[in-house]
Order: sequence, then C-alpha cells, then structure tokens
Amino acid sequence: MKILLAQQNYHIGNISYNTSKIITAIEHAKSAQASLVVFSELAVCGYPPKDLLEHQHVIEACNLAIQEIANHTTDIHVLLGAPHLSNDSAGTKRLFNSAYHLHNGTIQQIIHKTLLPTYDIFDEARYFNVGTKNQCIEIEGVKFAVTICEDIWNIQNHKYDTQPLDELVKEQPDCIINLSASPFDFKQANNRLQTLLANTKKYHLPIIYCNVIGAQTDLIFDGGSLYMDANGLIVAQANSFEEAYLFIDTATTSVTTQAAQPTDNAIASIHQALILGIRDYFSKMGFKNALIASSGGIDSAVVVALACAALGSDKVHTLLLPSPFSSSHSVTDAIALAKNLNCSHDIIAIDSIYNGFETSLASAFEGLPFSVAEENLQSRIRGSLVMAYANKFNKIVLNTSNKSELATGYGTLYGDMIGGLSILGDLYKTQVYALAQFINAASEIIPISIIEKAPSAELRPNQKDSDSLPAYDILDTILYQLIEEQKSIEHVIENGFDETLVKKAALLLTQNEYKRNQFCPILRVSSKSFGSGRRIPIVAQLY
Amino acid sequence: MKILLAQQNYHIGNISYNTSKIITAIEHAKSAQASLVVFSELAVCGYPPKDLLEHQHVIEACNLAIQEIANHTTDIHVLLGAPHLSNDSAGTKRLFNSAYHLHNGTIQQIIHKTLLPTYDIFDEARYFNVGTKNQCIEIEGVKFAVTICEDIWNIQNHKYDTQPLDELVKEQPDCIINLSASPFDFKQANNRLQTLLANTKKYHLPIIYCNVIGAQTDLIFDGGSLYMDANGLIVAQANSFEEAYLFIDTATTSVTTQAAQPTDNAIASIHQALILGIRDYFSKMGFKNALIASSGGIDSAVVVALACAALGSDKVHTLLLPSPFSSSHSVTDAIALAKNLNCSHDIIAIDSIYNGFETSLASAFEGLPFSVAEENLQSRIRGSLVMAYANKFNKIVLNTSNKSELATGYGTLYGDMIGGLSILGDLYKTQVYALAQFINAASEIIPISIIEKAPSAELRPNQKDSDSLPAYDILDTILYQLIEEQKSIEHVIENGFDETLVKKAALLLTQNEYKRNQFCPILRVSSKSFGSGRRIPIVAQLY
Repeated sequence: MKILLAQQNYHIGNISYNTSKIITAIEHAKSAQASLVVFSELAVCGYPPKDLLEHQHVIEACNLAIQEIANHTTDIHVLLGAPHLSNDSAGTKRLFNSAYHLHNGTIQQIIHKTLLPTYDIFDEARYFNVGTKNQCIEIEGVKFAVTICEDIWNIQNHKYDTQPLDELVKEQPDCIINLSASPFDFKQANNRLQTLLANTKKYHLPIIYCNVIGAQTDLIFDGGSLYMDANGLIVAQANSFEEAYLFIDTATTSVTTQAAQPTDNAIASIHQALILGIRDYFSKMGFKNALIASSGGIDSAVVVALACAALGSDKVHTLLLPSPFSSSHSVTDAIALAKNLNCSHDIIAIDSIYNGFETSLASAFEGLPFSVAEENLQSRIRGSLVMAYANKFNKIVLNTSNKSELATGYGTLYGDMIGGLSILGDLYKTQVYALAQFINAASEIIPISIIEKAPSAELRPNQKDSDSLPAYDILDTILYQLIEEQKSIEHVIENGFDETLVKKAALLLTQNEYKRNQFCPILRVSSKSFGSGRRIPIVAQLY
Repeated sequence: MKILLAQQNYHIGNISYNTSKIITAIEHAKSAQASLVVFSELAVCGYPPKDLLEHQHVIEACNLAIQEIANHTTDIHVLLGAPHLSNDSAGTKRLFNSAYHLHNGTIQQIIHKTLLPTYDIFDEARYFNVGTKNQCIEIEGVKFAVTICEDIWNIQNHKYDTQPLDELVKEQPDCIINLSASPFDFKQANNRLQTLLANTKKYHLPIIYCNVIGAQTDLIFDGGSLYMDANGLIVAQANSFEEAYLFIDTATTSVTTQAAQPTDNAIASIHQALILGIRDYFSKMGFKNALIASSGGIDSAVVVALACAALGSDKVHTLLLPSPFSSSHSVTDAIALAKNLNCSHDIIAIDSIYNGFETSLASAFEGLPFSVAEENLQSRIRGSLVMAYANKFNKIVLNTSNKSELATGYGTLYGDMIGGLSILGDLYKTQVYALAQFINAASEIIPISIIEKAPSAELRPNQKDSDSLPAYDILDTILYQLIEEQKSIEHVIENGFDETLVKKAALLLTQNEYKRNQFCPILRVSSKSFGSGRRIPIVAQLY
C-alpha cells in the first residue's frame, strides 16, 4: 500500500491555514495514487493549542475543518489529528485528543489518545479525557494499530500503568501508525529512535511514524517522520527541521541490514533547531526584521549569526552601545562580526544619557557609592535605546541571555533581559562556545577574538564574569545537576563539587525565579528549559 | 468532641517554618483539651508546591516533618495535609495529595484526594495519582468522612464522574471533614458556601471545613474555616484573611435557625485580599520597603493606598516623574496623596534625560515623526529611574497596571509594566474606580480630583485613554465576556455590543499575549486572571 506521511508546519489556532495545507497534501497524495495520507497529532489546530481548546468557537472551527477536509477524501483514506468533543458528557474533560479516519467524504472512525503526557511542557490532562477503547482500523485489507504520540512511549518511559499496543496487538494488526507532535531537545532524536526500535522489537510490527515540524513560540518540533520495518530497520525517513512529503510502500522492506544508529550530533541539531525557532517565530507572528544589541561578546555574536541564517542578513540590524566601561575591542569586534555576516549596524554611545541619569539622581543618591544600581542603569539605558529603535523601525528584539546567566540571575531585568524571543536561554555558556565553534567550522564568521576573550558584562572597570560567578565549566555542570537532574544540594556535593560553590549556585537559582518569571519565551533545546516546563513558585524555598 | 481547626499561613517549601507552626497549633489544642486538630490541604509543604514536588529532597523533608509532628501527638489526634509518596509504583504519578491521621506518635491512616483539579491555576494531575480507596476514620467513637478540597466540589461543578462522598456515606459517618487550599476570588466565598450547603443537604451530615489563609505570590487564600451543622447552619466560623484557631464542639448545633447567607461585598473582600497579597509577598520574600511610581492617576493612587495599608506608610515611598506632557495637577495630586497617607515622595523630572535620548537618537531617527517610540521612551525612562532608585535603596517596585490595560496592551513593556508584583492586574478599570471609592468611604484618602479626572497616559500633548480605547464601562464588559466567559466574538456581538469595538478588543487581547508573558505575577482576585490560570500560546490565533 502506498502511503504519504505529511510532515507539515502548522500554525496554532490558524485553522484555515492548517486546513488548506492538509488539503494540499491530500491532493498531492491523490495525484501520486497513494491509498492513505497520515498527518501528525492535532494537525487541524496545531500543537500545543493550550487554552484555545477551552474556547467553544475553536472546537467548532475544528469540526468544520474536519468536514471540509473529509470532502477531499474521495477514493483516498486520511488519518488526521484533531480534538474531538465527546458526545458522552461523562469523564473529567469534554475533549479527546484524537485521530480521525476520513474516507469518501465521511468520518469512518475516531481513535482517542490513551496516554496523556502531563509533565514538563505537557498539560494534556488539563484538556483531554483518557481514551479507553483501543481499536485498529482496516484499510484495503491492511490492519493498522493507530496510536498517538505518547501512546508508544511508555515502553521506555514507564510513566503509566498501561501500554495501549498490548491491547491493540490482540487484533493482530499488520502495522503500527503513530501520529506525533514530539518536540525537539538535543537528546530527543535518539530517545525517539530507541522508542521506535523497542516497539518493533516487542510487537514484531513495522511502524509508520509521522511527526510535525515547525516552531510554536518556545517549542520546536523537528519532524523526522519515518517508516521502520518489523526488524527495526529504517526503510525511509524525512529530513528533520523541514516540511516533507514522505511516500512509503508497506510492501518495501529496508535495503540495509544495519539498524538505525543514534547520531552524536547535538550541536548541529541545536543549530538547526534555533534557526527554525527564529524563522517560525517571525513568520507566525508576521514579523520581518530583527534587532540585536551586539556587545562584542560571544552570546550576542552567536545570536546575530543565527538570526542572519534564519532571516537573511538584510533582515538583521545590530546596535553597538558602548559605555566608558566598554573595552575598545567590544566595538571593533562587533563591527567585524557585522561585516563578516553582511548585516547592518549603528553605534550609539550611552555616556551622555548615563550622565543625564546621574545628574537627575544626584540629589537622591548623594553620598552613596557606585553600586548595582549604576551597573543596572547602564544595561537599562541600552534596553531603552534598543526598544526605541525597535519601535521606530518596527523591528523585533532578539534576546541574547544564556542559561547560565538566567539560572544565576546574572542579567538585568528591563536591561539585557529584554526582547521578544530568547535564542540562547536554554544553552549553558559552555554550549554557547560549542555553538560558536560549530558556526565557525567552515570559516571565521564569529571573529576569533570574540571567542577567546574572557566573558564580561563591562558594567564597571575591568569587570569579569568570573568576579561574581564560578568558572563556567564548573558552574554549568552544577546547574545541570540542579535543573535538568533535579538533584539536591547534598547529592551534587557528593558528586565531588565544592560545597560553597554548590550552595551559592542553588541559592542564586532559587533567588532569581522572579527575574525568569518576567523573561521572554526561550527556544527550548534541552529536556528541562526555563519556561512553562519548569514551574517553581516565586515565593517558594526550594533549597 | 472538641476540635481545633487550625487556619494557618504557610510558606511554600519552607518546611521547617510550616512544621513549627503546625506543632504550635497542636500544643495549643492540647492545652485546651481538644481531641483533634484539623489542618489544611498540603499544610506541610504549602500550597501550591508546583514542581517542588518533583524534587526528591522536598518529599524527604516532608516525610521527616510528618514524623516530627507525629511525635507531638500523644493523647491527641491530628489530621494533616501533606504529599504522600506511593510505595506502589503503579499509576501515572508517584505521589498522592493526602490527609495523614496522626496519633500517639504514629501514622494511623493516610487518606488520598480523589478529585484532582487540573484547570485554571490548578495542575494537580501533573503531580498526583487519583486516590481510589475512600475510607472513613474513627476517633473516640466518632466516624469522620475525610475529604480534601475538590473532593466536595463536584456536587456543584460537575467536572468529574464520581462523588467521593457517595462512597464514604455508605460507611455511615457522623461528620464530613474537608481539608482545603481553596484560593480567593471575589465570587468564591459564595460559591464555597453554596457547595458546603449542597453537601449538608445531600448527605444530611455536618461539615468541618478547614481552609488555608495567606498569599503565595499571585494566589491569595482567604480561609473562612467553619463548622456547619447537618441543617446547613453555621455553628462557628473563623475570620477570613487572617490566621485563626477555631475551636468547635461536635455536640453543639447552631443557635440560629437562619441558613448562612451569601454576602454581597465583592469590593470589600478584594480590598482585604490585595492587602494580604502585598503583605505576604513582602514577608515571604524577605522584603521590607515598597516603591511606587505615583503619576497622579487613579491606578497608582489605589496601589499607594493599598501598600500603606499592607506595609505601613513608613515602608512606602513614591516617585513622581513628570514630563513636559504631564498636566500640572499630576504632580500636585500625587503630592496630596502622599500627604494624606503620610508616606514619603521624591520628584524627578524626566525632561533632561528624555532630551539626552533624543540627542543620541537624532541621527538614527532623522526626519521621522514623533511616534509610539517616543511615547514608550518616556515610560521606559521612568522605568529605569524607578529601578535605579529601587536598586539603590533596596526597595521593591509595585506595579500599577490594571486588567483593562493588560488585556489591550495599553502599557509599555519595561516602562509602566515594570515591578515585582502587580496589585491591580486582575481588576478592570471600572473595578479600580469602585475600589478607590471604597478606600475613600470614611474619608478622602485618595484626592477626589484623582478620581474625577479623565484617565490619561500623558505621553503626548492632551492625550486621553479614550483616544485609543473604547469607554471603560463598555470595554470592560466586552473584555469580561472574552476573558472570564471565553465567549466568541460573535456571541459578544449577539449580546448587543458594537461589532467594531468587539473585534478591536479581541484583536488587542490576542495581539498582546507577548506583553503579558513578560509581566510580573498578578494578585488574583477573579475567576480568570492573566497568569498561570490562562494559557494562550503567543504565536496562536485565538480569534
């Protein structure tokens, strides 16, 4: 049987846009004489729809879209992810997360998701009822066990009591189908492969896996749709990070005998993910031009390079905002970067504005020493200049903070923490360096002096990050254990780290929840990003 | 039987503090010869603990605290809310939301919550397993049906398939006990009373209801613990918004024959809630002093009055930051306000700083007309001055935005949207006026000219809010239907509102998700506040 896996990029809530995309794929499949088109999870409304699902008019629009799509299913079968409003009012919620089988203008069958992820960035129990009736569907004599995303993951994760496929295989299906909206993190591609392999191994069935691609604000979906045969060999796979029509034939088996190998290419995949994240944020919000405060430091340099790759150099403008505490190379390096990338820049020194603030505050601050107030003030003047520029020229500010800074509060609210989207907020400083090296692999895009200089906020004379923070290689390892691994202070110390450093890192982490709470969305590339996947109450004492 | 309801104010994650409070209540009950002390839901860790529950060391600390508390239960019974780690690894989650029955140094019984709210600000399915084994507990021959918060609410809300009490009453209990962490909104006290009445009516049993008080960042818990007899008459009730030891005797019935009446005192309760919200944010964060940008407008005036009531006038400082566009009465009114409230103020004109920015931006902005860039710049200069002042003098900035502004994006990011806590962000402008009248009920605290002037941002000559926004009485009614009632544009228009206005309000609401995403926590007083209870993806198209 010839099947099209439609790996598409939807826009949450833009149901007419999504519908049109879905219909285009169906027509394409028809013209190629395919029998079935498989779409991803909640394709009709986009994933994650969040509280849009609580709005009656959104559900009604989805139902109309499903009917419109069904009108295009003459002589072809479609498996489509969409929310389903239950007629039966029993249960905690009104909706199911469902796969619609459409054929010849009508809804043939509706399969409900059984395992509802409700952890990290997932909130599915907030919206959906648990599907309890597992059922295969039969198309042209081939029996498919239809599952939705998390339904096949319990084989590895063991978060639930049940395995939907344990029930489904009793009907002796020929093949597993999985409709997914599985977000990227830099370990996820391997996890996904292991999960698919574990399913083929346990059930001795091939798997058709259709994942969505595209970024939705903070969440990036990488696709990687594929057809794996019953031996765990990949017969066909779509490229990651781009839309794809992947045609497969269930009669084909793999030409290789080599099981799929996990890749060890974290930084390369992060690079692709961030570019997609920037590009989709702009396209889905209707934005065109990016503005970046380019300090001559490594974080802003990497953001400028990524923005140019995502949007084109002609859409990227950099602002250089030196103060008397800026080193001379800050400006020359930032100019060299703009030149290498062929993007524009302006230089506005902040001295005179800073002096104006000092004069206005002179009587109130009389006799008091230079403090964090004056440091932050420089950062906030830069923030105001960047925003004035962005407002005047209709540009969107990209934030340049990294995860090490966000974790420790080493940044100024309304200063360097401004922006519409955080590009590096889920990358520790050491990962930012690795990304800079990756960007420079073919040629020196980021001036080498930017990579080699010691990190500094340059807010007082001869300041270095290392004056306030532990060395990043140690700090990042401690933070990873506290954040990603949720270890206690005692456990991290037992792992061989200095007690004073660990306690300081933990204290900074918990004291700066209030700052992160006011931060922009962060492109998520790890398994535990600051944002909706990590919910620590601000007044709480975690340690 | 003599019972103490301990209505206490806990601090999330500060388990040693909570434990000490709990033990003090037990000792107090012992000295009054009570047989039982009832505490609120998750008293040991505080509510809502959110992702603290994912940290092993937090659960271990709770277990140690329960044992320590048990050591104080010689000759007294205790019912205590705490998380319980399940030994049985089955089920989606590892934890239960439980009531511990402690007596004579040991855990006698552990009752699990059955109905786990997972909507609005609640995320209990993220953390907890559903309790399935309902069981009464018996103390000195009296049988109690023990329930936890949501367990008794399905009688009115009909969100679940089951009513835990339908099972529990088969054991023929003498009394219902409910351990709660039920947050305030201005309709909630009445909802709660109706819910308790519906339970007594259906089950013909008295109810002991113990709710927590205190604010945890955005969420305010109002207490109102009570004992209601089987006829739905309130025998005893603790004051709302304060800690209380409420002793009751199950042998007593009400001396009145009048069923409890819903109160119609929304603004008075909001006033109490906001004062508690400010006070607890400061005490739990370890802050002392508040700083407020006082514009001479009604929003900042109400915030200054509330801050003085919460913290004392000597802890409140106001900053007056006039620009050339400020009307003369802006400064005189703000001075009069500070004088009425006996709080201090400073005046710093922003003209010269603004001129400095203009000069620095002159070549970049050459030939371009005055626009939103210059309007926002004034607001951001104020933001930078306020933050410099706050940093220098170690004060916390209270934000003054209201819900109408936040809904429509009528505010400047990093300008008037700065602050550690939003006091009025869940009150529509019309409610802010009502609150001002309430504050002035006994005497003119807020100068009457502040209440009577037309609202203005004063960012360009003779600007009025009504230049950009519909009249607030109409706007607020439209917004209420879109936000609280989640109505579609079509439904609001059908309710008799102008199509152009409704579409404009809906567009502004959805376009400004990105601004609210970077806003500080908002004290929640309505059933649908911006913040964690309303989750709209930024890139989404809701309308």
